[in-house]
Amino acid sequence: MKIKGYAAFTKKADLKLFEYEPKKLDDKDVLIEITHCGICHSDLHLIDNDWQSSRYPFIPGHEIIGNVIGKGDKVTALEIGQRVGVGWQSGACFECEACEHGNDNQCIHQEATCVGRNGGFAESIIVDSRFAFAVPENLTSENAAPLLCGGVTVYSPLVHHGVRPVDKVGVIGIGGLGHLALQFAAAMGCEVTAFSTSSDKEKEAKSYGAHKFINSKDAKQMESAIRSLDFIISTVFVNLNWEEYIKILKPNGKFCFVGAPPAKLDIFIPPFAMSQKTVTGSAIGPRWMIREMLGFASRHNIQAKTELYPIKDVNKAITRLRENKVRYRAVLKM
Amino acid sequence: MKIKGYAAFTKKADLKLFEYEPKKLDDKDVLIEITHCGICHSDLHLIDNDWQSSRYPFIPGHEIIGNVIGKGDKVTALEIGQRVGVGWQSGACFECEACEHGNDNQCIHQEATCVGRNGGFAESIIVDSRFAFAVPENLTSENAAPLLCGGVTVYSPLVHHGVRPVDKVGVIGIGGLGHLALQFAAAMGCEVTAFSTSSDKEKEAKSYGAHKFINSKDAKQMESAIRSLDFIISTVFVNLNWEEYIKILKPNGKFCFVGAPPAKLDIFIPPFAMSQKTVTGSAIGPRWMIREMLGFASRHNIQAKTELYPIKDVNKAITRLRENKVRYRAVLKM
Repeated sequence: MKIKGYAAFTKKADLKLFEYEPKKLDDKDVLIEITHCGICHSDLHLIDNDWQSSRYPFIPGHEIIGNVIGKGDKVTALEIGQRVGVGWQSGACFECEACEHGNDNQCIHQEATCVGRNGGFAESIIVDSRFAFAVPENLTSENAAPLLCGGVTVYSPLVHHGVRPVDKVGVIGIGGLGHLALQFAAAMGCEVTAFSTSSDKEKEAKSYGAHKFINSKDAKQMESAIRSLDFIISTVFVNLNWEEYIKILKPNGKFCFVGAPPAKLDIFIPPFAMSQKTVTGSAIGPRWMIREMLGFASRHNIQAKTELYPIKDVNKAITRLRENKVRYRAVLKM
Repeated sequence: MKIKGYAAFTKKADLKLFEYEPKKLDDKDVLIEITHCGICHSDLHLIDNDWQSSRYPFIPGHEIIGNVIGKGDKVTALEIGQRVGVGWQSGACFECEACEHGNDNQCIHQEATCVGRNGGFAESIIVDSRFAFAVPENLTSENAAPLLCGGVTVYSPLVHHGVRPVDKVGVIGIGGLGHLALQFAAAMGCEVTAFSTSSDKEKEAKSYGAHKFINSKDAKQMESAIRSLDFIISTVFVNLNWEEYIKILKPNGKFCFVGAPPAKLDIFIPPFAMSQKTVTGSAIGPRWMIREMLGFASRHNIQAKTELYPIKDVNKAITRLRENKVRYRAVLKM
C-alpha cells in the first residue's frame, strides 16, 4: 500500500504530489481515510524549515478529520467507520514523568504528526489510536478540523491556569487562534476583551463573543485598560511591547503565550515581580484536554470560521495564509 | 509625646538620632514599645533612595517586635502588654479589589511601615492594629523579627503557587531570605536544592534543610540539574542568567522572583513558552498569610539565624549588611 499526498520537497517551495510507503499497522494503530485537514501556521514553519527540524520530502498537515478504515489487533476504543480527529501530536512514550502526570503534550519522547513523518495533506494516515479522538456528531468535519490543534491550543491555558467564569480575559490577535479563543473564553462565562491592530475586526470579534474591543495601536485605549484583566492569551507570532500588556493585568494576573515569537521577553523585573504577575506559555494540550475541548465545543457550538479548498488547491490556500488573508482558518477537503 | 529613633537624613549617610511627633492614636491603632527590629535589604534601598520614594529624614525598619502599650478605643483583637510583630506593610484600604480578595499586600492604597512615615529603628511606633500580629510564644523576639518581612516573603510564593510536599524546590541565594526559604520548603516536605556561588555555604545550607547543594558557577553541576525542579525561588538582587534556571525547571515548572533585580527578564520566548514554564514574582504576603506563616514557623521551629546589635550600633550593623557579611539577618535590640 502507498499513501498519496502533497509534500514539501524543499524550503519555501510549492507542495507537490508525493507517494510514500507507510509504516505497518501496529497493534494499537489506526488507518484513517482523511476527509479534511486544516492548515496551521506551524505547517508553514515546517515547510519553511523555520525550526530546523524539517526533513524533505514530507507531507505537512496536523488538523485531521477522517474515518477509521483499518485498525490494529489491540485497538478497542475505536471502530471501523468511526469519525476521528488527529492533532499536532501523534504519539507519546506513556512512561516519562510528564506522561505519568497526564501531561503527554510535554512527553520527552513525543511524536508529532508531521515532523519526521508524513501528515494530513494526504488521502490517509496511520497513527497511534490513542491520539485519534472521536468527534462529537454535531460538529461538522470542516469546522472540527481546526479545533484539533488551534482549538486545544487556546482552550488548554484557560483550563490549565484555572481561569474562572467571572475572570476578565484578554485575547491578543484575532486570527485562526484568536477567533477560537474568544469563543472558548466567552462560553466559559468570562468577560472577554479582544486586542487587535485592525479596527475592522471589531464587529467580527464581538460576534465571536468579545465584550470589548481594543485597538492596540491606540495608546489611549490601551491605557484605559490598565490593571483590568485577570488573564491574557497572546496568539500572535510577532514581537510586541509585552510590558504594555503586563500593565493591563491586575495584580496576580497571568499572561500566556500560545504563539511563540522568536524574541526575548524584555520585561523589566521589579514592577512585574512586585505586582505578583505571571508570564507563561502553553503548547497544545494533553489527550484528556483534547477530548474535553471537543465536548465543550460541541455543547457550546464553538465553530472555526473556515475557508474550504480542495486538496489540489493546497498551494493557493498556503499562499493566502502566508499573505495573512485567510478568515480565519483554511481547511483542505480531500 | 515624642518618639526617638535613628533616621536617615540623606542618601547613603549614617543614621543619626532623631525625634518625631507621632500621629494620634486612632480608634484602630496600637502603640507598640519596640524591643527588636530586623534590618532588611529594603531598608538599605530606602536609605539610599534607590526607589526614588524616600523623603528625609525618616526612620527605617520594618521587622518589628514589641509590646502593645497603648490602643485605640476600637481595638479588640489585641491586649495591652501583648507581644506583636509588624512587617513591611502597616495599612490597607480594605475596599479595593485586591483587599476584597484577601490580597491586601496588593492594595492600591497600601501604607508601608517606613515609607512616607517612620519605622522600627525606634523606641516605639503607632500602627493600625490590623497589621500588628500576635507572635507565638515559642518564637524568641530576636528570631521572630526577621520572619515579619523576610519570612513571609519566602513563605508566600510557596503557598500562593500551591507547592506540594512532594515537589522539588530550588532556592537561589543563601542569605537572609534564602536561609529562611530552605527551612520553609523543607518543613513543607519538599526536596530542596540550594543554589549559591559560595561553596562554603554548602554545610550551612544543608543544616537549614537543603537536600542538595549546587554551586551555580559550576556549569557541570548546573547541567546535571536540567529539567529537575518544580519550583524555584530567587532571593538575589543581582541579575543572573535566568535562562539557565528556566532550563532547570521541569515542564510546567515555575520560577519566582522574591528579590527583584533592576534588569529585564531576557528570556527567549519559544522554548520557555512551549515547555509551559512560568515566571512570576512575589511581594511579602497578605495578613492571613503572615499569621499562617508565624504559626507554621512556630510549629516547625523555623528560626532566622541572627546577629544581634544594640540600637546604638545600628550603623555598624548596616555597614556589615552592605558588605554582605551578615549571617544571616541583623537584628537591633532597643
